[in-house]
Amino acid sequence: MKIILVGASGTIGKAVHKELSVRHEVITAGRSTGDLKIDITDKETIKKALASVGTFDALVSTTGSVHFGEFMEMNDDDYMVGIKNKLMGQVNLVLIGRDYIAPEGSFTLSTGILNRDPIRLGSSAAMVNGAIDSFVKAAAMEMPNRVRINSVSPTVITEAMDSYGPYFRGYVPVDADTAALAYSKSVEGIQTGQTYIVD
Amino acid sequence: MKIILVGASGTIGKAVHKELSVRHEVITAGRSTGDLKIDITDKETIKKALASVGTFDALVSTTGSVHFGEFMEMNDDDYMVGIKNKLMGQVNLVLIGRDYIAPEGSFTLSTGILNRDPIRLGSSAAMVNGAIDSFVKAAAMEMPNRVRINSVSPTVITEAMDSYGPYFRGYVPVDADTAALAYSKSVEGIQTGQTYIVD
Ligand SMILES: NC(=O)c1ccc[n+]([C@@H]2O[C@H](COP(=O)([O-])OP(=O)(O)OC[C@H]3O[C@@H](n4cnc5c(N)ncnc54)[C@H](OP(=O)(O)O)[C@@H]3O)[C@@H](O)[C@H]2O)c1
Ligand SMILES: NC(=O)c1ccc[n+]([C@@H]2O[C@H](COP(=O)([O-])OP(=O)(O)OC[C@H]3O[C@@H](n4cnc5c(N)ncnc54)[C@H](OP(=O)(O)O)[C@@H]3O)[C@@H](O)[C@H]2O)c1
Repeated sequence: MKIILVGASGTIGKAVHKELSVRHEVITAGRSTGDLKIDITDKETIKKALASVGTFDALVSTTGSVHFGEFMEMNDDDYMVGIKNKLMGQVNLVLIGRDYIAPEGSFTLSTGILNRDPIRLGSSAAMVNGAIDSFVKAAAMEMPNRVRINSVSPTVITEAMDSYGPYFRGYVPVDADTAALAYSKSVEGIQTGQTYIVD
Repeated sequence: MKIILVGASGTIGKAVHKELSVRHEVITAGRSTGDLKIDITDKETIKKALASVGTFDALVSTTGSVHFGEFMEMNDDDYMVGIKNKLMGQVNLVLIGRDYIAPEGSFTLSTGILNRDPIRLGSSAAMVNGAIDSFVKAAAMEMPNRVRINSVSPTVITEAMDSYGPYFRGYVPVDADTAALAYSKSVEGIQTGQTYIVD
């Protein structure tokens, strides 16, 4: 398969790249790293990059950021950061990718544990994860040509515990390699409309 | 209790008004109807209306709209309609309401069945409902002064079947009066971070 991996240089992206590149052609993308320059908050960069590839079999996103902050200090602009980046950035990969994806291809987006198991500072992360998991579930039913769409929702990743540890006390981290298996399941399996929980 | 009910003239709002006004002072709000003029997409109208009331015990929202459309025909602006209206409109009621809500007060937002049980045309509704249910779950944990926040997620309402029927074939509708009980549970109970499913 020809797979586009947006966020390939990140904590999870590196492991997904390792898992998928053994069996498939993986084209990497990021704002500053990768074969393609894509900033998910800028639709023109997505359009240009996907047009340069043409037809592909899978698009995997291991990117997306949100504002973390005390709920009592957050305003609507803070929530819009995650809406524009992690939510609509990933959704735009799908909306634009519809024009290029091969029949029976797949989209795989990243969410995370914070809508299932909230932490302090995480109300925007929860909002955005819930939005994506729900979008995937509904959009899957309307995809033509047996194109599939899933999300992967990992708990905190072991390799990120140096920076995230203080926010995730008591959470059992999973290795990026384990999370990467869920992305493989989404890309190489037959299911659609699923959220693969990794924790 | 002094309760602000935004969307009081709607299908669900009328039933919630009937349920709560027997026991409480209910101040109604809407764009064109009600005691207070609030357009949830316009923060200034929310600020002005809430400032005119001062301290209140509960804010209930029975409003919020999204764009319904074929997934394959929807673009990002179509998704932004629901994000600005049903999602951030209701979230802004909470963010602005933080300044006026009494200790042990409550916020109750409206979502719906479409993120649990999707229909054609409903990918934006699913996204927004998932976002709100998740936001409520996380924000509840950070509310000060034992202020609570829940969402109510009804299936299609009997009184709306004249217009919504064709989109909800096979769904068992519930009466608005039954849905209204979930709003009462949220306002008059002690739970927080819950999504009350009514179906
Ligand atoms: N790490 C965790 O513990 C964890 C747990 C659960 C869920 N998640 C979720 O998994 C996803 C990936 O997390 P991560 O920790 O692996 O991320 P990360 O290490 O911060 O890496 C982010 C990746 O995305 C790229 N990127 C950043 N901004 C971008 C943009 N605007 N457009 C396109 N690419 C962009 C980066 O490359 P460039 O710098 O070249 O742009 C990099 O490849 C996120 O959605 C995160 O919320 C992470
Ligand atoms: N009806 C159903 O079957 C059903 C099922 C599940 C969930 N829901 C959800 O429940 C909520 C209420 O639905 P509904 O069918 O009862 O609505 P509705 O009958 O269309 O009534 C909407 C109410 O909100 C007010 N409103 C409209 N736009 C507004 C705005 N921008 N700012 C402030 N107020 C506004 C309206 O009054 P004005 O005209 O004066 O503004 C009216 O009081 C929605 O979130 C809906 O998605 C509905």
